[in-house]
Amino acid sequence: MTEQKATNVTWHEHAVTSEERAKLKGHKGAVLWFTGLSGCGKSTVANAVDRLLHDRGVHTYVLDGDNVRMGLNKNLGFSPEDRTENIRRIGEVGKLFADSGTIVTTAFISPYREDRDAVRALFEDGQFIEIYVNASLETCESRDPKGLYKKARAGEIKGFTGIDAPYEAPESGELELDSDSNGIEELANQVIAHLEAKGFLSA
Amino acid sequence: MTEQKATNVTWHEHAVTSEERAKLKGHKGAVLWFTGLSGCGKSTVANAVDRLLHDRGVHTYVLDGDNVRMGLNKNLGFSPEDRTENIRRIGEVGKLFADSGTIVTTAFISPYREDRDAVRALFEDGQFIEIYVNASLETCESRDPKGLYKKARAGEIKGFTGIDAPYEAPESGELELDSDSNGIEELANQVIAHLEAKGFLSA
Repeated sequence: MTEQKATNVTWHEHAVTSEERAKLKGHKGAVLWFTGLSGCGKSTVANAVDRLLHDRGVHTYVLDGDNVRMGLNKNLGFSPEDRTENIRRIGEVGKLFADSGTIVTTAFISPYREDRDAVRALFEDGQFIEIYVNASLETCESRDPKGLYKKARAGEIKGFTGIDAPYEAPESGELELDSDSNGIEELANQVIAHLEAKGFLSA
Repeated sequence: MTEQKATNVTWHEHAVTSEERAKLKGHKGAVLWFTGLSGCGKSTVANAVDRLLHDRGVHTYVLDGDNVRMGLNKNLGFSPEDRTENIRRIGEVGKLFADSGTIVTTAFISPYREDRDAVRALFEDGQFIEIYVNASLETCESRDPKGLYKKARAGEIKGFTGIDAPYEAPESGELELDSDSNGIEELANQVIAHLEAKGFLSA
């Protein structure tokens, strides 16, 4: 390493590249973007996929409500503008993780197609994998793991996706999972099979 | 893996833990928070440290102006409120990376002590390493790699740190680097020595 006189200029050339980071990890970075109604199982499937990948030695991370809505995005609510900004920030953080060589899974309702497409546009071809966890509203409402649908039906929560706020299903996503008629293990394995087929786990 | 009937509940138990992520990487996550005046060399030193760590097989990442101000924080300016939000978001993203087992370096002026302390409070003891790259204003202004001091002196940039906006130096940071009288290589090695002494590179 040689001393630089003009700081902040030449050293950018010496910065570690995305390719070098990917080489150290043994795989390229990517984002697995799970989307779907509340209660569709996206967080559950995302964590199951993360577990399967981690156990294979893949460097992964999960961005979900717990670590994002209470941290980075704690100054955002659920208005349409705030939902858009919420997804924008998560997309940008996903891009940083992917750039670091990490396979990051995100599990957010992300109801607006335009917002998801804006995130997709941040990534190189093939690096953004949109996974629609498709469960009918009836299924989600019958599960209602957090009691949110009940509150939304009672008018205690306003702007709840699927009740009085829209959910725009992906039209050309990479993968659609049928969460009405499959268990978590089956759905997680479908995601792994997709990643294998696309060469993400070839290293 | 057993099928879950109540989704979104029990699977959180199966989520990969921070400890498991650190084990896969061979080291714990941390943030190396470089702070100092524009032109003090913090981005240069941060990238040199990142290079040295990467070449030792450490899983690292750099958050700096290039990938943050143009992405995640592109909707923020340089008002005091925006600077605070800028640092808050970077701190939260640093926390996510550290949680993933990554040693992340950040290189931002981060002029306000209160803002840096708020970031510190996000981390476990010892996980936040504040590194003051101390160069005198005279040194920074004579380097002026981006011509910003000249513009600030000419009144073309308002609220420029060190000229007409304050810089509050760390009072109890983990490490202070003398950038007036040392080259990049020496400063980067001082950081590595600190990390070794604190056991971050023991794996």
